[in-house]
Amino acid sequence: MLRALSQLGVQRAALEDPGYGDLAVSDSARAARAVGIDVVPVPVDEFGLNVTALEASGVRAVVVTPAHQSPTGVVLAAKRRHALLEWAARNDGFVIEDDYDSEFRYDREPVGVLQGLAPDRVFTIGTVSKSLAPAVRLGWVLVPPALADAVAAEKRVSDRGSSGLDQLAVAALLESGRYDRHLRRMRAVYARRRGVLIDSLARHAPGVRLTGLAAGFHAVAHLPESADERAVVAAARQRSVGLYGMGPERSTTVAAPPQLVLGFGNVGERAVESGIAAVADLLR
Amino acid sequence: MLRALSQLGVQRAALEDPGYGDLAVSDSARAARAVGIDVVPVPVDEFGLNVTALEASGVRAVVVTPAHQSPTGVVLAAKRRHALLEWAARNDGFVIEDDYDSEFRYDREPVGVLQGLAPDRVFTIGTVSKSLAPAVRLGWVLVPPALADAVAAEKRVSDRGSSGLDQLAVAALLESGRYDRHLRRMRAVYARRRGVLIDSLARHAPGVRLTGLAAGFHAVAHLPESADERAVVAAARQRSVGLYGMGPERSTTVAAPPQLVLGFGNVGERAVESGIAAVADLLR
Repeated sequence: MLRALSQLGVQRAALEDPGYGDLAVSDSARAARAVGIDVVPVPVDEFGLNVTALEASGVRAVVVTPAHQSPTGVVLAAKRRHALLEWAARNDGFVIEDDYDSEFRYDREPVGVLQGLAPDRVFTIGTVSKSLAPAVRLGWVLVPPALADAVAAEKRVSDRGSSGLDQLAVAALLESGRYDRHLRRMRAVYARRRGVLIDSLARHAPGVRLTGLAAGFHAVAHLPESADERAVVAAARQRSVGLYGMGPERSTTVAAPPQLVLGFGNVGERAVESGIAAVADLLR
Repeated sequence: MLRALSQLGVQRAALEDPGYGDLAVSDSARAARAVGIDVVPVPVDEFGLNVTALEASGVRAVVVTPAHQSPTGVVLAAKRRHALLEWAARNDGFVIEDDYDSEFRYDREPVGVLQGLAPDRVFTIGTVSKSLAPAVRLGWVLVPPALADAVAAEKRVSDRGSSGLDQLAVAALLESGRYDRHLRRMRAVYARRRGVLIDSLARHAPGVRLTGLAAGFHAVAHLPESADERAVVAAARQRSVGLYGMGPERSTTVAAPPQLVLGFGNVGERAVESGIAAVADLLR
């Protein structure tokens, strides 16, 4: 996909910030530079990617996570979606839509993909890494029809294809309806953990605002401005509570507010509760 | 691996001829050019890669199939092996040893890998594509120690790793000894098919010389000089006998002798017999 874009003359692409951390060392940025595409960060706010900043950056491609921005958890607002597609049309631009966490949405029906609105300008990528397991190493790309052959050739030269056994196993899961059943079951499991996270934080640290809860398995806790994000993360780890600061996800860390990324995907309800209690204790 | 070589300043690499067909379109050549390495063909004769021609080509890397050259079936001669490693030492060169078909050797013990003789200059690549199935998509690389980190990073940026499930399954096969048992059983199966191929050809077309039989699942039949390789292949296909000419594997086809590549890996003994009878009929 990246090579196909490079062959179309795309020389610079934008990545969401926060999103990929330090672009000097991030794998995604390396993958882009490996095919001669330089990357620049474009800020994300409470409505998702800042399309005005994207326009100003002068790039011709952008990677976005509209369903549940990684890692802020923001959903790309309807206005921004339209602005993004207008940007693409005006600039001969391309959108790589990472359809991240769209399977696990709690407040309403899944948001539609951008790809349906502009199939010639949008690549939509998906994966079973979240819904089944990262070890499966399977994903898919919806490609603008004119670029499908180029992307297929790129995949063939890159690795000659993914595991046939795993593809057949996932196909059998899909065809049998068991994949859908699995998603429904897991959505309920994650929804309960999410509920425990919300309740625990409200009880133990009522002053801490929580955002990014519409989908996925993580939320963002907004710490008091005086808090030291790195110190809180380090102290929590010492108490065996594994959480992440937003800092490492940022490309631009100047004047960044202290925030925690709280994951509940692989943590049981009791562990969520006791983890939050420990963090609240640290914030006192 | 290719990117790591490119980062070391390798700008041109040699591929065996015959071996990869038309380098303008072959996947291997495309993969090299994708990281900025140009490829040139170097001829193979009855002793394997012509190291004098390699030296003259001025490249700094070469891909070889020493155990059973693909597709001539020639084994790289001991003298050539030493010459190849001397070439590498003299030219700050690197050898990519595709340890192709080494598991299935019929006349004597498997030939040792080049890598053991010059671990700082040789990458040895292997795969379960032949021993289990291509659909498994698993292989390995023995990397010169100084380049191991760079190759691991290259793999990570390329695909973030191969299927964990398949890796665990193959690891279980290896640890249990069942992989070795499978190789031994299949070696006997292929040896019988190979025997049928040799006997059938001797009986039906005694004038046709067969080479490349020391290992693997294919042999090369040397047709009379007057034979039209492409016409024989086309006529055989019309009779539902699937075989290949050497022509499409060659980079340089000027004055190439007519040869057939006869595979017996996925063909039963009776089909080998009747296929050879049909081809012999065509040659009359």
